[in-house]
Amino acid sequence: MFKPNVELSPPFDITRASHVRYLVSDLDESLRFYTEVLGFVLSDREGDVAYLRGIEEAAHHSVVLTKSSDAPAAECIGMRVRSEVDLHKARQHFLSVGGTAEFIERPFQGPTLLTTFGEGTPPVELVAGMPVLPRLLNNFPAQKGGRVLRLDHYQCVVPDVQTTAGKFMALGFRPSKYTTHADTGNLLAIFLSRKDNPHDLVMAQAAGPRLPHSAYVVSDFQAMFRAADIAGNLGYGRQVEHGPGRHGPPNGPFLYFRDPDGHRIEFILPPMQFIDPEDLPNTWDSNDAVSLVPWGGGPPQRWREEMTPFAGIESAGGTVARWTSMTETAAENSAN
Amino acid sequence: MFKPNVELSPPFDITRASHVRYLVSDLDESLRFYTEVLGFVLSDREGDVAYLRGIEEAAHHSVVLTKSSDAPAAECIGMRVRSEVDLHKARQHFLSVGGTAEFIERPFQGPTLLTTFGEGTPPVELVAGMPVLPRLLNNFPAQKGGRVLRLDHYQCVVPDVQTTAGKFMALGFRPSKYTTHADTGNLLAIFLSRKDNPHDLVMAQAAGPRLPHSAYVVSDFQAMFRAADIAGNLGYGRQVEHGPGRHGPPNGPFLYFRDPDGHRIEFILPPMQFIDPEDLPNTWDSNDAVSLVPWGGGPPQRWREEMTPFAGIESAGGTVARWTSMTETAAENSAN
Amino acid sequence: MFKPNVELSPPFDITRASHVRYLVSDLDESLRFYTEVLGFVLSDREGDVAYLRGIEEAAHHSVVLTKSSDAPAAECIGMRVRSEVDLHKARQHFLSVGGTAEFIERPFQGPTLLTTFGEGTPPVELVAGMPVLPRLLNNFPAQKGGRVLRLDHYQCVVPDVQTTAGKFMALGFRPSKYTTHADTGNLLAIFLSRKDNPHDLVMAQAAGPRLPHSAYVVSDFQAMFRAADIAGNLGYGRQVEHGPGRHGPPNGPFLYFRDPDGHRIEFILPPMQFIDPEDLPNTWDSNDAVSLVPWGGGPPQRWREEMTPFAGIESAGGTVARWTSMTETAAENSAN
Amino acid sequence: MFKPNVELSPPFDITRASHVRYLVSDLDESLRFYTEVLGFVLSDREGDVAYLRGIEEAAHHSVVLTKSSDAPAAECIGMRVRSEVDLHKARQHFLSVGGTAEFIERPFQGPTLLTTFGEGTPPVELVAGMPVLPRLLNNFPAQKGGRVLRLDHYQCVVPDVQTTAGKFMALGFRPSKYTTHADTGNLLAIFLSRKDNPHDLVMAQAAGPRLPHSAYVVSDFQAMFRAADIAGNLGYGRQVEHGPGRHGPPNGPFLYFRDPDGHRIEFILPPMQFIDPEDLPNTWDSNDAVSLVPWGGGPPQRWREEMTPFAGIESAGGTVARWTSMTETAAENSAN
Repeated sequence: MFKPNVELSPPFDITRASHVRYLVSDLDESLRFYTEVLGFVLSDREGDVAYLRGIEEAAHHSVVLTKSSDAPAAECIGMRVRSEVDLHKARQHFLSVGGTAEFIERPFQGPTLLTTFGEGTPPVELVAGMPVLPRLLNNFPAQKGGRVLRLDHYQCVVPDVQTTAGKFMALGFRPSKYTTHADTGNLLAIFLSRKDNPHDLVMAQAAGPRLPHSAYVVSDFQAMFRAADIAGNLGYGRQVEHGPGRHGPPNGPFLYFRDPDGHRIEFILPPMQFIDPEDLPNTWDSNDAVSLVPWGGGPPQRWREEMTPFAGIESAGGTVARWTSMTETAAENSAN
Repeated sequence: MFKPNVELSPPFDITRASHVRYLVSDLDESLRFYTEVLGFVLSDREGDVAYLRGIEEAAHHSVVLTKSSDAPAAECIGMRVRSEVDLHKARQHFLSVGGTAEFIERPFQGPTLLTTFGEGTPPVELVAGMPVLPRLLNNFPAQKGGRVLRLDHYQCVVPDVQTTAGKFMALGFRPSKYTTHADTGNLLAIFLSRKDNPHDLVMAQAAGPRLPHSAYVVSDFQAMFRAADIAGNLGYGRQVEHGPGRHGPPNGPFLYFRDPDGHRIEFILPPMQFIDPEDLPNTWDSNDAVSLVPWGGGPPQRWREEMTPFAGIESAGGTVARWTSMTETAAENSAN
Repeated sequence: MFKPNVELSPPFDITRASHVRYLVSDLDESLRFYTEVLGFVLSDREGDVAYLRGIEEAAHHSVVLTKSSDAPAAECIGMRVRSEVDLHKARQHFLSVGGTAEFIERPFQGPTLLTTFGEGTPPVELVAGMPVLPRLLNNFPAQKGGRVLRLDHYQCVVPDVQTTAGKFMALGFRPSKYTTHADTGNLLAIFLSRKDNPHDLVMAQAAGPRLPHSAYVVSDFQAMFRAADIAGNLGYGRQVEHGPGRHGPPNGPFLYFRDPDGHRIEFILPPMQFIDPEDLPNTWDSNDAVSLVPWGGGPPQRWREEMTPFAGIESAGGTVARWTSMTETAAENSAN
Repeated sequence: MFKPNVELSPPFDITRASHVRYLVSDLDESLRFYTEVLGFVLSDREGDVAYLRGIEEAAHHSVVLTKSSDAPAAECIGMRVRSEVDLHKARQHFLSVGGTAEFIERPFQGPTLLTTFGEGTPPVELVAGMPVLPRLLNNFPAQKGGRVLRLDHYQCVVPDVQTTAGKFMALGFRPSKYTTHADTGNLLAIFLSRKDNPHDLVMAQAAGPRLPHSAYVVSDFQAMFRAADIAGNLGYGRQVEHGPGRHGPPNGPFLYFRDPDGHRIEFILPPMQFIDPEDLPNTWDSNDAVSLVPWGGGPPQRWREEMTPFAGIESAGGTVARWTSMTETAAENSAN
């Protein structure tokens, strides 16, 4: 039986989703996709590692691509903390709850703490600051493709979402939306937020940990279409996987791409504001397709099944739960 | 072996696609869908017949809905001629080529000639004028749903598209795009135009005559999404069948709806101009999916198979040709 | 006392507004503005002459820029005719009504006839065809700035608009909108059309002939803003002269730019369709500002007064008539 | 000499701009404007007081309109605090710094503290919570006009902006942008933020306190135009005062309306994110028009001079400073 919780005095202060690290097989090809199609700006490239940011972002990077001969994977997801003091508090916290926490060196980042919450959870890199670069938001001639604005959130699947969500809520992550199993009342999927909109981290029940997508904000439908149109021109037309379409509240319009290694990037429009404590989380019936995707035929099968693994972590456990019933219904629609 | 042809001195002057007549099972339900979701304006309703126009249209109607206990069907597609004189010339033409042509009375229409081109062709109603009503294009508070602007074109499937297209080209319909069988060179699908854009009538090879869709123009992506969003609110979310997406040139963005009886309405954005005679038709490789749908997963199976029959006319003949290979490829994509 | 007229059997067949020829002082600077800001495509450049088209256009050019040490001016406006036969008919017509008509050589054009309608009228170049180049409509990476789609119409001022409009109506130009003097009933301003929308040539009463603007179609508000935004980036911010705003029907949203020589380019959104003969012209009260600009503060003074002259033709006559009352009211608004 | 400051441990926790209270002369007329044109939702009306919210807002109201026979004025601007505890801390703070702070009863609000910062500052109402109502964000048929999403910020002018800004920075308001006098280095205008974007309160130097505008977020250009278009239809066309246009970073597109009493409402598009502490405030040269309005002719004179007074507070002091030089330049442009 799940109960949402809001920890008003978290042990340290996470401010927002910060950056994701992907392993890719061909860095030039990936850069072509991220800059020409999606519209990321290359902040720096050092050897086999490229650092990219959205046109609105002053922080040095929100996606890091590293060439690797290993299978495509994510190294970790990143979260910003308010200041370096928070990293030391964080280290104490993780060690006290049986996780791991290690200060590491990362180029183009301030002090950084790599953490895990224990088995079945995604590795999270906490960072206290980044070099600041000029925003390209009003440098219109320099903008390309979908003119991606900024990172918004990640979606992770984990084998025991109720337990893992509890660990994040203890860090001050606030639920904006969730669904539970009709019989057991156990959590099946949840949207968690630190910044002033409904999502920094979305989690659902499935074999994991895996990373179904990272979500970035674009300005309007025109930007979504432009990215898809350029994807078509550059030979990535079939990597426009799902959408444009709409998610139910508190989300909005979406479009999903697969990058050249299959990592999934979601484009969303500017999310709604989510600040006031009396604004309680939405719940939805996990058997009700409409509340998640109010119109259209739903995602293709591969959208439901293919997800980025975390490097060096075997995906395990977690029967796929009823939160996917929507997509099953939708798939039936799209197949008849 | 197909050769495109442009008849510069047609026997009479067709100016544009004009209106479609659909039989529906529940007129109130259909009106709700056409006005609240798609944004049509009700021009008149007399008993079991309703006349609708887009917000840009001054002509009395571009879609006529008639309640019927028969199976859902289209009665005919309508074309405008320049003047009444053209109807008399048209009658002579149709009788001389072995078709039929009969003057009939239609409420809210000027002189009207109901014609057929012979077996396997759609019935076409030629009309010389309509009562004029106020445009609602700048009456913003009165606009609803997708704020549909105007009728653009029809798509028909016919069992012998090369022969049927020839009959329309003899009437001055001008090809803007077509594809032929890789081996025989026979026509498989063609876009034909009378007005100043690339399509009044699109035809493809399949058992027929049937009417896969009627296409209407909306102003921008926002209008497409608004219609889909309201469809979701009003319980028609699964009738947003395919899209938003993009067709290859000379077409553009699309979104397909199914009305409550399954009649398919396409929304398109304002088409390009197509006037100059030296502007030769595009051709495309019927085995090449990309040229028709440059990105995304392609239409669901039902989009390819379900089409409105014409009332009283049995669909026959016409093996489905390779112009559908695109959608087969797409369907594979969407199923893996 | 003005009476609109539609000549159904014109002496020859003009199909659409085709191209404008501007003299410019610095061709490189002008090309920067037309390609980077407005989004034109350079079709060809030969010495001091550059030929540009919109991304939708297959015809070789819709604007021709010629470097000249003379004061900035327009050489002529261009109109397309259906075929070369029409040019010979046109020559006979112009000579028979006391105008001039001379076949001339123009690079990248088919047979071309330069004509005048007599004193106080703009020179018009009739052309029977152009080389065809690839459309860039679906070549998204190649598109820049406002991604201008195509030429739509010209606005000319002439000292005796009623007489001049009569000459164009005799050629089959059809009025879609006009206003007359409240006391005399004489024509003050008129929108005339040959293609399937309400305007190829707009004319108003003022000292002339002069060319207030050429109007080009862009896809949506986003394209308008993008052009203005890039204008700001490239140092042309104050040349975004008026708008974005809305004109009353049958027009729509607008944005006016001044090119580096002060030639005025209007961006409009895709115009409505205008085909049916029973669709009579709108009239408006020339004392009523609202019907022309339904909201906002109206244009700046320079928008009303500064216009491109025609090369070698002295502007004369034509007291500025009440069709400008709107802009006077608006200017008062913007100044209080 | 101004120095920006960020107080990391403010005496109490303000979370965001919350609501504004306007006195209006005709409540029905004002409601027509706010609901039909701008798209606000009426949450409640009790006698002469109406409570409105944007379609995204769950909090009960973001604008309160009170019918009054007094001259049009604002009663106060409202700010949200995290919890009731913050109100008691706030009361202590205001009393300790020589201001006033009084708990008051407000319908449809939680505990509320009315405060002043001393002479020349706007009255601010702090509120710890509001009743929650359903969001209409995904109730598309219920949305009207510009479909205003939510309150974003206020602009106030005060006679001593440097002193007043200092008082707000002591409460944790963080500068995102400011300009100073070229000679003295004294503050002329500043953007201050509590929530995760660059502005909750913008202040500039002028006779005051007065309230030039309240700013609300809308989804896209289409929403801006729709509001303006409906304003035109409903007789408010000349109350579309300035725009659509663009402000320089960190702002974006804008459109200014005057309500029936002259209160000015700004529409903006979704603002950029502003969270990271290393993201230092922009500065701009107060003599440089371009940095504030990169393109277009600039605002009309009345935009610069007409502002809502605060009820019962006489506007005084404050020579209009050079931050308006932009608008002076722009006005010259628009008048030549």
